[in-house]
Amino acid sequence: MSKEKIIPYKIYLEEHEMPDSWYNVRADMKNKPAPLLNPGTLQPLTLEEMSGIFCEELCRQELDDTTPYFPIPEEIKKFYKMYRPSPLVRAYCLEEKLQTPAKIYYKFEGNNTSGSHKLNSAIAQAYYAKNQGLKGVTTETGAGQWGTALSMACAYLGLDCQVYMVKCSYEQKPFRREVMRTYGANVTPSPSDTTEVGRKILKEFPGTTGSLGCAISEAVEAATSQEGYRYVLGSVLTQVLLHQSVIGLESKAAMDKYGIKPDVIIGCAGGGSNLGGLISPFMGEKLRGEADYRIIAVEPASCPSFTRGKYVYDFCDTGKVCPLAKMYTLGSSFIPAANHAGGLRYHGMSSVLSQLYADGYMEAVSVEQTSVFKAAEEFARVEGILPAPESSHAIKVAIDEALKCKETGEEKTILFGLTGTGYFDMVAYERYNNGEMSDHIPSDEELAKGFAGIPRFPGNDI
Amino acid sequence: MSKEKIIPYKIYLEEHEMPDSWYNVRADMKNKPAPLLNPGTLQPLTLEEMSGIFCEELCRQELDDTTPYFPIPEEIKKFYKMYRPSPLVRAYCLEEKLQTPAKIYYKFEGNNTSGSHKLNSAIAQAYYAKNQGLKGVTTETGAGQWGTALSMACAYLGLDCQVYMVKCSYEQKPFRREVMRTYGANVTPSPSDTTEVGRKILKEFPGTTGSLGCAISEAVEAATSQEGYRYVLGSVLTQVLLHQSVIGLESKAAMDKYGIKPDVIIGCAGGGSNLGGLISPFMGEKLRGEADYRIIAVEPASCPSFTRGKYVYDFCDTGKVCPLAKMYTLGSSFIPAANHAGGLRYHGMSSVLSQLYADGYMEAVSVEQTSVFKAAEEFARVEGILPAPESSHAIKVAIDEALKCKETGEEKTILFGLTGTGYFDMVAYERYNNGEMSDHIPSDEELAKGFAGIPRFPGNDI
Repeated sequence: MSKEKIIPYKIYLEEHEMPDSWYNVRADMKNKPAPLLNPGTLQPLTLEEMSGIFCEELCRQELDDTTPYFPIPEEIKKFYKMYRPSPLVRAYCLEEKLQTPAKIYYKFEGNNTSGSHKLNSAIAQAYYAKNQGLKGVTTETGAGQWGTALSMACAYLGLDCQVYMVKCSYEQKPFRREVMRTYGANVTPSPSDTTEVGRKILKEFPGTTGSLGCAISEAVEAATSQEGYRYVLGSVLTQVLLHQSVIGLESKAAMDKYGIKPDVIIGCAGGGSNLGGLISPFMGEKLRGEADYRIIAVEPASCPSFTRGKYVYDFCDTGKVCPLAKMYTLGSSFIPAANHAGGLRYHGMSSVLSQLYADGYMEAVSVEQTSVFKAAEEFARVEGILPAPESSHAIKVAIDEALKCKETGEEKTILFGLTGTGYFDMVAYERYNNGEMSDHIPSDEELAKGFAGIPRFPGNDI
Repeated sequence: MSKEKIIPYKIYLEEHEMPDSWYNVRADMKNKPAPLLNPGTLQPLTLEEMSGIFCEELCRQELDDTTPYFPIPEEIKKFYKMYRPSPLVRAYCLEEKLQTPAKIYYKFEGNNTSGSHKLNSAIAQAYYAKNQGLKGVTTETGAGQWGTALSMACAYLGLDCQVYMVKCSYEQKPFRREVMRTYGANVTPSPSDTTEVGRKILKEFPGTTGSLGCAISEAVEAATSQEGYRYVLGSVLTQVLLHQSVIGLESKAAMDKYGIKPDVIIGCAGGGSNLGGLISPFMGEKLRGEADYRIIAVEPASCPSFTRGKYVYDFCDTGKVCPLAKMYTLGSSFIPAANHAGGLRYHGMSSVLSQLYADGYMEAVSVEQTSVFKAAEEFARVEGILPAPESSHAIKVAIDEALKCKETGEEKTILFGLTGTGYFDMVAYERYNNGEMSDHIPSDEELAKGFAGIPRFPGNDI
């Protein structure tokens, strides 16, 4: 007698079933992602050049596109056990509400104090810094999610943590700031007088409330000007996607345990850390020809790097201090319209995901924010979790796909990434609740202005 | 060969291991808690009197002190599966930090959008209201935790939810307010002009920022003056402790599964909903003489109902519109000094816990808030969870007990309740981080003022 397993509302792996290694999807890519370039020489960045800014082991991970698995160090596995495995949730209540024959699953990464998946890479980056004998790390944070995650990781390892927080966020989001301070981080509003670049900007624009580009420049300067410090970054980089593969590996293990195979995999895409992590083992199977999945990246219509950007080399930061990366980009000077999904406002995209998209291994759609908040509200009311605006982009498209199944009668299995909670995004929810939220799709002229800032050199045709 | 089970960092019950019934500890109490009294007649409140304010089934639960188990309705079990079981966590990292031979466990109730255990009773109360064919429920909220939980439950069941939120909280905690609105609740700053009592207070004190007592009065008036509405309450009542028994039942099932037996059980005590829920099945065994546990209630030194209060009949609310309850009380007019553990500022205590304390089945200690925030910070940095100030009272005493074990070398097993997260309490953390927090222990004179407001009648000696 065959015994069909009842799928619970939440699938938790046992501790011994948690991944022992991160998966490096580049190892299975025929067309490797283009290397980072030194903006001065336009030559691929060397380990030596890179290791002045980043920890050595992280540089090695950044450059290695052939090793498929990187063992997760014991200390990191221990930290993971504190807040992982994260649940793979069967959205029974949402399915019932939608009256869809589709089976909807989501991997929920919000059940930790940082409120998102960012912690998965923060602990890894802090660990390698500690292991190298460093005193501390520096970083920038906009909304504060990444800064919080890094503060938590550093507090755990006893590492100094210096966060440059965009001044307007520092002032408008005092709660995020205090969480970081509670974890012992040194939080400085940027621009500040603690760095040369900060002082220069303050002199030039005395009343400025800062920008992410400026905060990056200050954090990089702080790292390179202090003995025993390095700079760390929460998205875009390939090392970050590697650490975030834990999301996908856990999802796949949980699904395999119950014999579930997703037809469609959906994730929101800002810099690509969550999406890259979620899809990695599934993409690996697809690249090796072992299985096929529809993979959908969801981005805001106000910042459509995949769907309307150029696939060229560009600066990673508005301050133009970082290396050049080949990616789908709107230009480092592109300024998206006010959109509260702060984590999805990045002008570019992970070079790994860019290459996979260019090669046709995944799709991309863009959605407007009012429809995203509508989906968020619908989800919150039946599934009980108040989602982050970023994550809600994936919810929106998952609901759309489930409703298509309702029309066609197909019993598709949908998996999406629920990257985090929206507890610190209530200003955006308030605007939505008050009917004060609007959409903005950039015109071709607006996009052209951003493209104009992309560097021109032989082979970099836009 | 005996195979000793490795205790994971987090023990999750399987769905089929979740409790099917709530446990009513009163059934095992020889000395039953004293009944609620009608303040007019000083006679025990009847089902009829009670059911004008509360749903009928909840009144029955409130009055029943003999039935040991109440089956959990299927619809509520379904909702529980959305966010439960909550994890029983082995605090390996905290143990290591403290270098204690004690084994520390905590039941973490904060992994849901309401951020606390309040949801366990909110869904039950909303369910019975819906089942009775009511249109909606009314309630008051101070800090907003209970209001949020109730909003979530009502959204799920499609029930109208009217929340009277103390005006100063409404203005100072717009995020909590917006979470409730996102779940479709109607949130009114109290005092308001929507009720007679509200209009009266506004006329008398035009600039008032409200109080919990006033919000209760408005919510009760709103419930009794609208067809198809009843009033609901998040703590103190015996029905609430019944629903919260799910915390203790899950904890015990998880411990039994691994053959763990706690020596000490610790919970913070405000109105008693969390503590009463956590200890209930353990207390049942103690009452039946099947096992012995040390049970410790932790309260703030600024509001010490157990440790310095009187065990007499008193009003449950400052507005004196509710029935009289026999409990440890500081007097309904007692105003605790500014203490950010809002949930522990209640002047009284559950009548069930009061009777158990009076009969010597549990201990109580009071702790000062700066020591509580110190413990909270220590906990957050090693266990990764930013705790609510209320929950941190239990952390403080758990750490104290673990340090005693370090001195004596005893390998005691400690279980405490981690009721919620502190994401909406960052103003208090900021004061602590800035060294601006102070302690206040009320003088005997201050307490005497509160006691003076306790009603006098034959047999109610203070």
